[in-house]
Amino acid sequence: MKVIRYPKKEDWSALLTRPALDARSLERDVARILEDVRDRGDAALRHYARLFDRVAPDDFLVGEAEFAAAEARVSDELKDAIRLAKANIERFHAAQRDQPEVVETMPGVFCWRKSVPIEKVGLYVPAGTAPLFSTVLMLAAPARLAGCREIVVCSPPAADGRVDDVTLFAARLCGATRVFKLGGAQAIGALCFGTETVPRVDKIFGPGNQYVTEAKQQAAKTGVAIDLPAGPSEVAVLADETGVPAFIAADLLSQAEHGVDSQVLLVTTSEAILDATLTELDRQLAVLPRRAIAAAALENSKAILVESTGAALELLNEYAAEHLIVATADADEIAERVVNAGSVFIGNYSCEAAGDYASGTNHTLPTNAAARGWSGVSLDSFVKKITFQKLTRDGLRAIGPAIELMAEAEQLRAHKNAISVRLEAVENR
Amino acid sequence: MKVIRYPKKEDWSALLTRPALDARSLERDVARILEDVRDRGDAALRHYARLFDRVAPDDFLVGEAEFAAAEARVSDELKDAIRLAKANIERFHAAQRDQPEVVETMPGVFCWRKSVPIEKVGLYVPAGTAPLFSTVLMLAAPARLAGCREIVVCSPPAADGRVDDVTLFAARLCGATRVFKLGGAQAIGALCFGTETVPRVDKIFGPGNQYVTEAKQQAAKTGVAIDLPAGPSEVAVLADETGVPAFIAADLLSQAEHGVDSQVLLVTTSEAILDATLTELDRQLAVLPRRAIAAAALENSKAILVESTGAALELLNEYAAEHLIVATADADEIAERVVNAGSVFIGNYSCEAAGDYASGTNHTLPTNAAARGWSGVSLDSFVKKITFQKLTRDGLRAIGPAIELMAEAEQLRAHKNAISVRLEAVENR
Repeated sequence: MKVIRYPKKEDWSALLTRPALDARSLERDVARILEDVRDRGDAALRHYARLFDRVAPDDFLVGEAEFAAAEARVSDELKDAIRLAKANIERFHAAQRDQPEVVETMPGVFCWRKSVPIEKVGLYVPAGTAPLFSTVLMLAAPARLAGCREIVVCSPPAADGRVDDVTLFAARLCGATRVFKLGGAQAIGALCFGTETVPRVDKIFGPGNQYVTEAKQQAAKTGVAIDLPAGPSEVAVLADETGVPAFIAADLLSQAEHGVDSQVLLVTTSEAILDATLTELDRQLAVLPRRAIAAAALENSKAILVESTGAALELLNEYAAEHLIVATADADEIAERVVNAGSVFIGNYSCEAAGDYASGTNHTLPTNAAARGWSGVSLDSFVKKITFQKLTRDGLRAIGPAIELMAEAEQLRAHKNAISVRLEAVENR
Repeated sequence: MKVIRYPKKEDWSALLTRPALDARSLERDVARILEDVRDRGDAALRHYARLFDRVAPDDFLVGEAEFAAAEARVSDELKDAIRLAKANIERFHAAQRDQPEVVETMPGVFCWRKSVPIEKVGLYVPAGTAPLFSTVLMLAAPARLAGCREIVVCSPPAADGRVDDVTLFAARLCGATRVFKLGGAQAIGALCFGTETVPRVDKIFGPGNQYVTEAKQQAAKTGVAIDLPAGPSEVAVLADETGVPAFIAADLLSQAEHGVDSQVLLVTTSEAILDATLTELDRQLAVLPRRAIAAAALENSKAILVESTGAALELLNEYAAEHLIVATADADEIAERVVNAGSVFIGNYSCEAAGDYASGTNHTLPTNAAARGWSGVSLDSFVKKITFQKLTRDGLRAIGPAIELMAEAEQLRAHKNAISVRLEAVENR
């Protein structure tokens, strides 16, 4: 890690800059794939599967026998762990349900909002260096809870043509309605336009590589909704002298092992903690299976020493981390003052891994400073909040003249007239 | 309007297709403008203002004297109407506030979600054929209510170099912190990247022409959030024999007058209502100031006769209109069964114009079938919902082993280790 001691405030911005992601070179490739899927459907999917995944299943749809075989191969212990995580995720997301509340904004004018499930959602579950079945839990469980009618999962098959066993088990457990052996930009194209076998969906969720991310953004321009612009994963740890170097190092590494482009940041008020954490990093890194990846990620990462937890917080509010771990004596109070972050982990026992898998919060979170303007995935992400209104005669009388004036001022006479014809009918004026 | 009688279900999809919006030709132009604004800041803004708006103010920022002069020119009657609308909008949006609820997902594992205002928002207020000050009400009022710290409005100046008086009055009234005389894709670029005079914002809101829309979508790829993909405005009316042709015609026209690309749809179970509405359309159209625009929009519009309100509803759920007016005897019951729509207007007195201006619901809504996956703007649009979690020792003990298993199964050993080092510390195992 690069160590920076007491940076001046005017240098913060440069210090906190993430590496620019230049997707320009991908744009054309991805656009071509999407167009091809739109125009040729399954034939295009088969073409790209052969080209990129070196394996093109006869049938993209995962069948009953495949689910059964996969389930048989997952250990009972792991199944129980997944069930525990699912229960926590459901408990947390169920608390996000809301009931319509009718507001009488003025006498006779009734307005309300109702959450209606998005009918068809597509969930992309990556399987690259490691199959990420936890993504299924984080997306399919809330989708089911929200009441989505069609929950389609796409996940790329391994060289043997199979989707990861645990992914299939989790998909079935969480109520996915169909799973397709399909990855990459072509999977996003299929969800966006629909093909002979893959249904078009209303919203696409899930992380993925640069191709998948670019494809989601291009898909969004066609009108399909997407969850989040997903970039490389990030963690920032804010620690004072009460932090535990072994814990901090483990947390930093658990982000660093995701990929060489992972962003890892330590901001601390304690030089002793900083030094001890660097030592711990070396010790823990040495025994990690993915140490090459983690070491590369750490090279681009920063450990910043600051004067006070207040300064640390200000700096981190500017950074807007996807995950923010607060390991300070006054962690609760600090957490209250967080303005920009995807998810906040309070105190020494609240590691990011808890939220990644099982505590109940969603792990699909805004990266790359998007936390300034975006929320992570929640139950809200799987519903539309439709507004309704009903005016009585009295309501129309009360509000009508103001609307007539405003419409006239906007030079929209037909808008005014929609009120006037009604007022005439009720007033006979 | 094109009249279609009892279409077969297999023809619905073709019938409901909106004209394709091909933004391809704009992409390069808009990309060049955005890059230029990013690289040259105010100089680029001045260049494009001269090029497109034929007017480049010395100072883009609206000053105190300009606000005062504008306010003096707005009639007291119109000010009162705007204050009434603002009060209703605030009442409806204030009811959308939520309080954090701490969920103990399992013993010792506490999770919650808190709404935190987005710090800096940019609101684009178009002023083309007509200045749309109602957009200020719909965006600035909720932004202020949510607690956004910086509320920046951009609106293109007229030929005299001034921003519309009512827009300035409304901006001040609703708590906008700064207003810039700035329009087009260059305004979006300024909000996205920041310039010497315009601050970079975290989220960009507001409707606009094709250039503005394309610019918002390109801006979104840089990480700034946007409200909605905005397309041409739409209304669909579902009427049975209890509909009032004069009301229906006025509602259809109040959408048609927006632009030649407006989408207008009547779906009815009654041939008598259909015929009478067509007659009313001719009568009302003849006296509209914007009749050329409205007539052109109507030419592309459809009146569809169906067998039952059930069929009408099914067809309209597939269409996913921005605005849906339900003018039937059983309007309440029909409204309950709406699955896809931006906003629903129930009964003969609830015209779209009410929601456009003053009833309290937001008029920034998903168009072009985006209502299948998107919600309209609400208080939620101006906050991030940050998740928090706190594990106690007991919580860590309860959840730790499941996380270890799952992390191991995902081959993410450092994730597992983040739990293991903590379990070791508390258990001394």
